[in-house]
Amino acid sequence: MIGVFDSGIGGLTVVRALRQDLPRYNVLYFGDTARTPYGTKSPETVIQYAVQDAEFLLQRGAKILVVGCNTASSVATDRLRERFDVPIFEVISPAVEMAVSQPKGRRVGIIGTRATINSGVYEQKIKALRPDMKVYGAACPLLVPLVEEGWLKKAETRKIVKKYLHPLKLKQINVLILGCTHYPLLKEIIRAKIGKRVKIIDSSEVLSRSVKDFLHHNPHMAGDLGTEGTCEFYVSDVTDQFQKLAGKILKSVGKLEHIKL
Amino acid sequence: MIGVFDSGIGGLTVVRALRQDLPRYNVLYFGDTARTPYGTKSPETVIQYAVQDAEFLLQRGAKILVVGCNTASSVATDRLRERFDVPIFEVISPAVEMAVSQPKGRRVGIIGTRATINSGVYEQKIKALRPDMKVYGAACPLLVPLVEEGWLKKAETRKIVKKYLHPLKLKQINVLILGCTHYPLLKEIIRAKIGKRVKIIDSSEVLSRSVKDFLHHNPHMAGDLGTEGTCEFYVSDVTDQFQKLAGKILKSVGKLEHIKL
Repeated sequence: MIGVFDSGIGGLTVVRALRQDLPRYNVLYFGDTARTPYGTKSPETVIQYAVQDAEFLLQRGAKILVVGCNTASSVATDRLRERFDVPIFEVISPAVEMAVSQPKGRRVGIIGTRATINSGVYEQKIKALRPDMKVYGAACPLLVPLVEEGWLKKAETRKIVKKYLHPLKLKQINVLILGCTHYPLLKEIIRAKIGKRVKIIDSSEVLSRSVKDFLHHNPHMAGDLGTEGTCEFYVSDVTDQFQKLAGKILKSVGKLEHIKL
Repeated sequence: MIGVFDSGIGGLTVVRALRQDLPRYNVLYFGDTARTPYGTKSPETVIQYAVQDAEFLLQRGAKILVVGCNTASSVATDRLRERFDVPIFEVISPAVEMAVSQPKGRRVGIIGTRATINSGVYEQKIKALRPDMKVYGAACPLLVPLVEEGWLKKAETRKIVKKYLHPLKLKQINVLILGCTHYPLLKEIIRAKIGKRVKIIDSSEVLSRSVKDFLHHNPHMAGDLGTEGTCEFYVSDVTDQFQKLAGKILKSVGKLEHIKL
């Protein structure tokens, strides 16, 4: 199985992309809803949680790990790779690769949680490959609660998105990375506020494509992962809100099991 | 020591009120910042966390427990009383007592997290004492993230507060209970939006007054609790945001220690 974890609900946008790109592959999802969100917490705490999440997925039979959470990807990937001997995919690198493939002189904006933006990981990775690019980060800590609240199209959400994007507009960015797996759910609003000329990179989509590429080059993995097209969902806390929002992201969330870490 | 716990930062408004009403008494605070917020989580999970928080405070020498979190007060107080043999104060009852002391025919509004409002605890307690009162709850899940973001006076916050209070205005309430220890930080905005004629009950303040009354009637507790006026703060995750906001609530947060539960 392809094991995907997230702090809660955001990683379901990664599952959605994986189901589109790799519908035959078996997926195992863990959402740490008992401790969500990760984006407001310290790196040490996020690392501790990410290791526990990964351990759970591996125990349940995952053969590939997908970190479907930008905060955990930003601060915990190195630790996960040191510790676990399976292919590990995270949301940062595919988005960075897409960003650096853009024409010369591009100005890249990144929006994410406070933990992701403070980590500086996108900027470092982009600058390492393309020192000519200008990179600007903007922490948008209210967007996760707004999405979790299901306020996907409300006027208040539009206003807050506009406020957060304003400094990036002033910098005249031409590429915007959605550095949080919750943000694809606000893509329409973000598109309207940042303008049509800005290329938006959806980290959930590019992550899914990088898993697809990997499997294309490693066809022997298919047997290990299982290709019955099953999808299992585990959460550390069961809330009505999760079920409601999960239904908005994926058409149907089949089996949903509660697990205490 | 008087032990106060909360999911994170909100309980500091209770500490602020205790410092004003009982400046000589020693206070021990625990903020569960590694798992904050509680208000979006299920009762089972909140109970589990509240028991761990209380155990920590008792181990550190607390002789009285103050549940400085409305969500935990709503769903976990009974379990805490079954389990721990110390005086336990929670934020619900003092606010309810204040509400039921209002003149006949009053219409009471309550704002809180989704977990608090869904628990129906305020409504049950008020109706049990005053069946003549009309009680209306409104879940305001975005207010905690707005406060934690420090957006205490922003236009977006005003707009969201207005939206949340709108159904209560339509019900023509004359009493409003701030059913979350974060909300006193938004009192000015709430006052402006709900109107001058509505009596606002600040659960942090009335809770502190009920602890004061208890100590007045139980003067022998003073020796157990210590009256050097010390204040110790423990958190399960150290973040810049906590320190910043704590400074806004209390003039100074002295010793701040990180503890893993």
